[in-house]
Amino acid sequence: MKIAVLGTGSVGRTLAGGLAGVGHRITLGTRDPERTRARGGGAESFGAWAAENSDIMLATFAEAAEECELIVHAGHGAAALEILAAAGEDNLAGKVLVDVSNPLDLSQGFPPTLFVKDSDSLAEMIQRTFPGARVVKTLNTLTAALMVQPGLLPSETTVFVSGNDAEAKATVTGLLESLGHTDVLDLGDITTARGQEMALQLWLRILLSQGTPMFNYKIVR
Amino acid sequence: MKIAVLGTGSVGRTLAGGLAGVGHRITLGTRDPERTRARGGGAESFGAWAAENSDIMLATFAEAAEECELIVHAGHGAAALEILAAAGEDNLAGKVLVDVSNPLDLSQGFPPTLFVKDSDSLAEMIQRTFPGARVVKTLNTLTAALMVQPGLLPSETTVFVSGNDAEAKATVTGLLESLGHTDVLDLGDITTARGQEMALQLWLRILLSQGTPMFNYKIVR
Repeated sequence: MKIAVLGTGSVGRTLAGGLAGVGHRITLGTRDPERTRARGGGAESFGAWAAENSDIMLATFAEAAEECELIVHAGHGAAALEILAAAGEDNLAGKVLVDVSNPLDLSQGFPPTLFVKDSDSLAEMIQRTFPGARVVKTLNTLTAALMVQPGLLPSETTVFVSGNDAEAKATVTGLLESLGHTDVLDLGDITTARGQEMALQLWLRILLSQGTPMFNYKIVR
Repeated sequence: MKIAVLGTGSVGRTLAGGLAGVGHRITLGTRDPERTRARGGGAESFGAWAAENSDIMLATFAEAAEECELIVHAGHGAAALEILAAAGEDNLAGKVLVDVSNPLDLSQGFPPTLFVKDSDSLAEMIQRTFPGARVVKTLNTLTAALMVQPGLLPSETTVFVSGNDAEAKATVTGLLESLGHTDVLDLGDITTARGQEMALQLWLRILLSQGTPMFNYKIVR
């Protein structure tokens, strides 16, 4: 599949690498490809990462969204609507739009609060703003490394999908299975993304108490 | 241990029965013992339940809290502060106070929202209101039947404790272990109850999608 991953931070890079690794053709989307290419040195250098991932293309948000059949928003939650507007409403229309971000409000420091919750969610905001897109919320409940390599944990864990379009959820479920997720739980329509997003606060406290993000939920049933 | 369980609904009855079953001496606390004894017929009848659980005493909130060394709030979240005020601040002082409730706001129908969240929690409200009590939040993340019989599920699951007092958390962890919980995760101080309480929205969507409350989280790590 031709997949656009919007966002070149650690989540975007990890997802892009993981999806490319299972045979998809990935274009990373960014605001300004020249600036992204020139970004810093050291471990965080985009150039060093790109050199090791030469099969992954880099383009503007709009170019990436236009040429791909499935789009993943992997930027910061607070930037989601702006990034998707830059991608272009027409380039999202009719396509599966996967949102993996959390609506973090870091203005009061750490730990963050959520800038939308409980009676609404970021995924619903995205769906309302881009009604032509087939939004699916998933993967915001685990760390990036485990999104693409769930087998790093000692036993099977669960990931969730929320969305209004059954076919879009089936496509995303297939994508998740290709990454090694064997327990994909369909929570229901896009409003159920409230559950996935609000779980962030439990995830954060487990992170802080365990001292590692290498954990995930298994729904035992 | 002499334990007061405040609340005679299904959570209170189930916890009382489970704790009595592992050897604790339980007093159920209620607003008006006479009215509770007289409550309805059929499956929900308190009398029928009490007849099968004759080792469990019934008393007012204040009497139950006064004579017991550990107190469990098992009423509705919205009634927590009122129930604990009726139990009496002096009767709570210095004691372990376990809160297993969720801060449900059902005024807008189902599914509910939370009346406190994200930058505060019901457990913190309880701790602030009764500073002499040693509040521990736990067990609000699973259905009552599994609180007292986690072995009904096919594999080990996780429960959480949040509280400011390490000794109180150790006492509660021991109580949870006596009920069969083999993975009790200490999240940290009472502010980490925000994580446990906000997980309610994910729990609810899993409930609705699975059609059963017989599931629980396992934190795979």
